[in-house]
Amino acid sequence: MSGNTFGRALRLTTFGESHGPGLGGILDGCPAGLPIDEDAIQAELDARKPGSGLAGTKRRESDKLEILSGVFNGLATGTPIGFYIKNENARSGDYGNLEEIFRPGHADWSYYKKYNGVRDHRGGGRASGRETAARVVGGAIAKQILSRLANVRVEGACVELGGIAVREEDINLAGAMERPYFAAADYIVAAWDEAVREARESGDTLGGIARIVARDVPAGLGEPVFDRLDATLAHAIMSVGAVKGVEIGSGFAAARSRGSRNNDPLYPAGSPGRAVFGSNNAGGILGGVSSGQDIIIQAALKPIASISIEQDTINKRGEAAKIKIGGRHDLSALPRALPVLSAMTALAIADALLLQRRMDIIPYER
Amino acid sequence: MSGNTFGRALRLTTFGESHGPGLGGILDGCPAGLPIDEDAIQAELDARKPGSGLAGTKRRESDKLEILSGVFNGLATGTPIGFYIKNENARSGDYGNLEEIFRPGHADWSYYKKYNGVRDHRGGGRASGRETAARVVGGAIAKQILSRLANVRVEGACVELGGIAVREEDINLAGAMERPYFAAADYIVAAWDEAVREARESGDTLGGIARIVARDVPAGLGEPVFDRLDATLAHAIMSVGAVKGVEIGSGFAAARSRGSRNNDPLYPAGSPGRAVFGSNNAGGILGGVSSGQDIIIQAALKPIASISIEQDTINKRGEAAKIKIGGRHDLSALPRALPVLSAMTALAIADALLLQRRMDIIPYER
Amino acid sequence: MSGNTFGRALRLTTFGESHGPGLGGILDGCPAGLPIDEDAIQAELDARKPGSGLAGTKRRESDKLEILSGVFNGLATGTPIGFYIKNENARSGDYGNLEEIFRPGHADWSYYKKYNGVRDHRGGGRASGRETAARVVGGAIAKQILSRLANVRVEGACVELGGIAVREEDINLAGAMERPYFAAADYIVAAWDEAVREARESGDTLGGIARIVARDVPAGLGEPVFDRLDATLAHAIMSVGAVKGVEIGSGFAAARSRGSRNNDPLYPAGSPGRAVFGSNNAGGILGGVSSGQDIIIQAALKPIASISIEQDTINKRGEAAKIKIGGRHDLSALPRALPVLSAMTALAIADALLLQRRMDIIPYER
Amino acid sequence: MSGNTFGRALRLTTFGESHGPGLGGILDGCPAGLPIDEDAIQAELDARKPGSGLAGTKRRESDKLEILSGVFNGLATGTPIGFYIKNENARSGDYGNLEEIFRPGHADWSYYKKYNGVRDHRGGGRASGRETAARVVGGAIAKQILSRLANVRVEGACVELGGIAVREEDINLAGAMERPYFAAADYIVAAWDEAVREARESGDTLGGIARIVARDVPAGLGEPVFDRLDATLAHAIMSVGAVKGVEIGSGFAAARSRGSRNNDPLYPAGSPGRAVFGSNNAGGILGGVSSGQDIIIQAALKPIASISIEQDTINKRGEAAKIKIGGRHDLSALPRALPVLSAMTALAIADALLLQRRMDIIPYER
Repeated sequence: MSGNTFGRALRLTTFGESHGPGLGGILDGCPAGLPIDEDAIQAELDARKPGSGLAGTKRRESDKLEILSGVFNGLATGTPIGFYIKNENARSGDYGNLEEIFRPGHADWSYYKKYNGVRDHRGGGRASGRETAARVVGGAIAKQILSRLANVRVEGACVELGGIAVREEDINLAGAMERPYFAAADYIVAAWDEAVREARESGDTLGGIARIVARDVPAGLGEPVFDRLDATLAHAIMSVGAVKGVEIGSGFAAARSRGSRNNDPLYPAGSPGRAVFGSNNAGGILGGVSSGQDIIIQAALKPIASISIEQDTINKRGEAAKIKIGGRHDLSALPRALPVLSAMTALAIADALLLQRRMDIIPYER
Repeated sequence: MSGNTFGRALRLTTFGESHGPGLGGILDGCPAGLPIDEDAIQAELDARKPGSGLAGTKRRESDKLEILSGVFNGLATGTPIGFYIKNENARSGDYGNLEEIFRPGHADWSYYKKYNGVRDHRGGGRASGRETAARVVGGAIAKQILSRLANVRVEGACVELGGIAVREEDINLAGAMERPYFAAADYIVAAWDEAVREARESGDTLGGIARIVARDVPAGLGEPVFDRLDATLAHAIMSVGAVKGVEIGSGFAAARSRGSRNNDPLYPAGSPGRAVFGSNNAGGILGGVSSGQDIIIQAALKPIASISIEQDTINKRGEAAKIKIGGRHDLSALPRALPVLSAMTALAIADALLLQRRMDIIPYER
Repeated sequence: MSGNTFGRALRLTTFGESHGPGLGGILDGCPAGLPIDEDAIQAELDARKPGSGLAGTKRRESDKLEILSGVFNGLATGTPIGFYIKNENARSGDYGNLEEIFRPGHADWSYYKKYNGVRDHRGGGRASGRETAARVVGGAIAKQILSRLANVRVEGACVELGGIAVREEDINLAGAMERPYFAAADYIVAAWDEAVREARESGDTLGGIARIVARDVPAGLGEPVFDRLDATLAHAIMSVGAVKGVEIGSGFAAARSRGSRNNDPLYPAGSPGRAVFGSNNAGGILGGVSSGQDIIIQAALKPIASISIEQDTINKRGEAAKIKIGGRHDLSALPRALPVLSAMTALAIADALLLQRRMDIIPYER
Repeated sequence: MSGNTFGRALRLTTFGESHGPGLGGILDGCPAGLPIDEDAIQAELDARKPGSGLAGTKRRESDKLEILSGVFNGLATGTPIGFYIKNENARSGDYGNLEEIFRPGHADWSYYKKYNGVRDHRGGGRASGRETAARVVGGAIAKQILSRLANVRVEGACVELGGIAVREEDINLAGAMERPYFAAADYIVAAWDEAVREARESGDTLGGIARIVARDVPAGLGEPVFDRLDATLAHAIMSVGAVKGVEIGSGFAAARSRGSRNNDPLYPAGSPGRAVFGSNNAGGILGGVSSGQDIIIQAALKPIASISIEQDTINKRGEAAKIKIGGRHDLSALPRALPVLSAMTALAIADALLLQRRMDIIPYER
């Protein structure tokens, strides 16, 4: 309830500040007997790591995963999986002055108000993007659950950066994690390089749009009415820092469409209880429940708030102040946010999958 | 966990199908001593009622609220508020053939898969928009909590319909509930009338965009990291049928902005712990916690799936079929969805407000 | 969170006061396709009804169940089951003076303090035993889930009343619901009649002990470490008014035993993964997880607080007062509490059963 | 939901096995600004530590607490408090044979059934009493919350061991933590020494009874109807391994009492809204809500299941076997369980206290 837990059947609870000893979490509800591939988890962590992507921070962290419980002889035991990642390269000195002043676009002001002035101001404390490393660990295990139980795969790519978008017909998620910026197409990389260079020179930052697709999701996941799968996915995605918008399927374009165009027709697929769809404007979710089509999510990420251009703000005494952010910061939340968005998607769908197994239980003869 | 409960400190649990005896819910967590204004609740219900709006269904329901518990001598007692609304005008005959066939764009298929073929097909059963009446009741009480405890007001309007948008500078939420379509401006009504007329003639339906704004929300609401206020709002909004996209503040436009433009500067407001902001691209939420600015939400609603144009689909035996929807349906989810989106916003913020009261408790002398 | 919901996979949320229009609830999580036997639910309600048992109140209620949603063509649809029971025979006049004075042993004082003086004092309001009717409905459906999915049966009897206990070797739960007092043996009835007569003459009330046994519970239910099956059962049982003590298996006698006597030895049962036990001091739960043996629970119920003997108390102005309770009250919480304890047991075990179905999913070859 | 989290407003989630790298947890919901006294937490841990008490195991652990997040400059920040305790002295070799055989009275069998044969058998894995160290850390912080916000103190003592009880009138909790066995009176120690000596010689183990009392608990805590304070306390206490019975106030004795004796009369205390009680059979809880009196809890603990007397059991192949437990085990769950029971009590009451702060908010003028 205090906000650091996500999920119902599969529950991830996390802790940790940017400049404390480390961060970690507890994943509760992983089915007993699941083989846990630690290398695969570490690979997801490495994709999110400071320094990955061209636009990265200069902070260096090895982000080495330690699993502390819940896995024995390579298998999940069904008991909670505790894990920990040490902070190695925190340089708190960079942030000393931030105790006194509120950075525009950051959580400094709202945390200050929320916690009556008590906060770990160093590097954003709990509000730092660094907390997302724990999400990536949980999400990586969720992907192993999804893969083993239902052959679900979660893919993603950056489809727009600095206002420069990959054309819809060119989007190819397959090789994205190997491309610079985890880009949705090769051809866009040069244009993004140029945008990044220009923004860096002007001391400014860029926003972007990420797409996540979950393939082979079984029909029937999601709980009407408040915990529809699209609602829990929106919750999951919007909980990631910098996200300001979420779309499922055709998203905002649906608002400008017609029923006759936006509805996805069904066609026979050879046997009762099977269907093929003529389009996927629904993004794989009908009435809040998965339809068996790909689940398609888009997230809008605002530009990173830390800029080296001088900004107006106030200090703790309520006085006007100027601020120009130094320290080690990314130029865009993308591409590093992509593994995080992918992890949150996996957590939400794996949670829905484990919940749904309860419902399929009474054979009904009609 | 089974999806029919929303909230943590203030919990709404609902039940009811479109064509069953009625629908209702239980609101748990309402503070003792709150004066309950039943007329104000009924007024919100009336705004959502079938037949309100130009684009409405022909089904007529009085939607008369019955409060069954939790209120004594006009005051909430702190015990659960049970409430009930009878279905009076269900005509199940209209839907008899829907047992055999899956309507494109509806939950028919996904519910069929989820519940192993067991479902109340009449009028969409639990997937019908009719369940939202219970949300409106919960939301109306949430508004009374917000108003009494913190002078928060929730406003809203339809800002786009059928692709025809009110210009940003013309949006005026103040009188919207008195305008046709709950429109954000008077001048747009004629254009929307024309679009509605044209869509009706062609047997088609329209999508649209709604804006909800919560004013005078105190700073400090929302729980890092998974239950950020924007995340629980996105959950709340996306749980409403037909919603395919959610934005907070500048939303998808933020993805095309720069840090220097998108950050909202702070200026002195006369005393420590107070601030005025130079803009509100954040939509009132920083780091997932309310900043004290207006909270601004936009929701994209797809066109209603029920169209009287013939569509391809399949039946329960997996055979190809054609469907042309008769029955009583709206032409657009807006404007009737507006009171529902407003209710969900109020529920999410009131929940956060009641949670936050726990945290403000240890005076910290620095 | 506000206390009117029980369960995780199978969730019962209830509402209603003793003297309001009625009471009811929502059962969320019932598997789709379960045949719902309304007569069986009504029979459980009738066993709890005012007037059942020799020691009953004179208030007469038909306690007629209305199911409002979630059941279609006799089958649960998987959507929430809303239900309602009208109050017919509330005579609020009897309780008018209770607004001013606190009855010893009742919730009057503690509710007064909790809710800042706001409360529905009539007949105890929400604190009345009348709220348990909604528990019985939820429990009756839980029993149908248990029976259909796992052949589990829940039995119970009154084993002690007014200090007069059935001998352990004479306890026979099989026919208890047909005996007066739901007694665990025929021979005890005459002694209890005499105790009841004597207590009634002196204007006093009696306590007692109930035993609930769940048979054929599959091994493996219960979640370590906080939500052990014994912990959730203790929660369920202690949440029933008048219960002051709970035992699992040998209970307090275990504290006086030795490991060599209290441990239950295992013997072969013909195949790997099967066992027979030489005794059942554990009450069917080892390490918080069901073992496959009968689950045995005992509950101690205090004497009813409403007595017609004069007692010392205070009034709302803080002044000394005398009180002698009239109105319509039972002489003992037993036998009417027995169907309630049985219902709570069924709810807790059915919840654990539905949760466990998630875990059994990864075949493990060793 | 998977059972490793306790609490609603104050949530403790734990992880860790007996013979893994270590154990720990996350406490979420601690109010910002609370001074955290790490030495006081360590002192509670030391009281539970292997080797404390005369009846202790020979396993030696320093149980050194590491706080990993949520505390900055000695104050809780309101963000989750992550903590960790290394296992230093695990000797897994002692338990190698336990992979093949089920120890009577232990969780071996039920975990085997629950997790399809996948389990960390070493030292009981997650079912080991070692997990309780994390509870003690959470409880120690809960005590600091209780003390700071409401001056609540939690005390406890062992009142019975091996069937030898301290007389009610001799029970004195004040100095108990300094006495051998955390005994409720000095005079009993010699008798318990003798019982322990005799049991050890015969290779057997002893049960006992612990009493926990929470003093100065404000009236009004606990949520009707399912989450009554006595219900959540029973849940908390019964979740501790070895506990087979829980009593509140007069407990099972209430079942043999009369209303006229068991009711606690109220007397004036000088002003409206204040009361003194003539007795405390209710154990400080009326209608599930705290009354302002001391909260009194008793827990029955079964004798430790590990005995060095030969017992009948079966092995994984379903064959009859004999077992005689070596390894390092306690002779009784008491006294080491006492700090754990005290911790769970503190967690349950602190949770209820933080929840209640939400309700006290609307001044009601009558």
